[in-house]
Amino acid sequence: MSVSAHVFPPPGAKADLEEGSVLTPRFDAAGLVTAVVSDMDGGLLMVAHMNAEALDLTIRSGIAHYWSRSRQSLWKKGETSGALQTVQEMRVDCDQDAVWLKVTVAKPEDTCHTGRETCFYRSVSLGPHGGKLSAR
Amino acid sequence: MSVSAHVFPPPGAKADLEEGSVLTPRFDAAGLVTAVVSDMDGGLLMVAHMNAEALDLTIRSGIAHYWSRSRQSLWKKGETSGALQTVQEMRVDCDQDAVWLKVTVAKPEDTCHTGRETCFYRSVSLGPHGGKLSAR
Repeated sequence: MSVSAHVFPPPGAKADLEEGSVLTPRFDAAGLVTAVVSDMDGGLLMVAHMNAEALDLTIRSGIAHYWSRSRQSLWKKGETSGALQTVQEMRVDCDQDAVWLKVTVAKPEDTCHTGRETCFYRSVSLGPHGGKLSAR
Repeated sequence: MSVSAHVFPPPGAKADLEEGSVLTPRFDAAGLVTAVVSDMDGGLLMVAHMNAEALDLTIRSGIAHYWSRSRQSLWKKGETSGALQTVQEMRVDCDQDAVWLKVTVAKPEDTCHTGRETCFYRSVSLGPHGGKLSAR
């Protein structure tokens, strides 16, 4: 893999970031942007992170790649489990520090490492005595 | 506002985090969890962050509060713009470092500071020559 393949242009001024037509990601101090991953119905599957290489590989291949903060390594989601994510649509937010992927998943039941179709499988109760979790 | 109002129990072992029935958020080194905010149709509106106080206020009041990293202050979303977010549902992810809010917005056109209904108003083109942005 060539080094030059995953260089993005540096972020420009606010107007370029917000209204420009080129992706110039604002990576954080750890070199990461946030990736929000939904299914095609808008159900949230997971939240992950991408470094420049993961973002570039995702754009070029159409298959979601992340940066695993726990393993400190590139992570082609589903490479082991089979729950590969094919990106149907990608969006970026106003200040270009987060991307949104809408994906289809080859083996949805292995999306979460707990063996569920989403990492967001518990509701949080609201109200003065809130904060209790219950299965969806 | 009392200090004790926004203390959450500390995160427990992996099994408690993943299968427990109590919210024990895993705040990062900056004291924050990620908040993903969708409308009721699953459209992604924004990504933000919450400290313990913002998370507690959101749960207790049902109105979304965040921590503004740029201003380093509590941020009741919409307090100025009118785009208040009423939380219809909150979920937490497997390892409790991210929450998902499904909200209704009082003044949707002011959700993004650029004057749009979502911060994710641009698509990113995919493929070998991807990375171009276009308005949705």
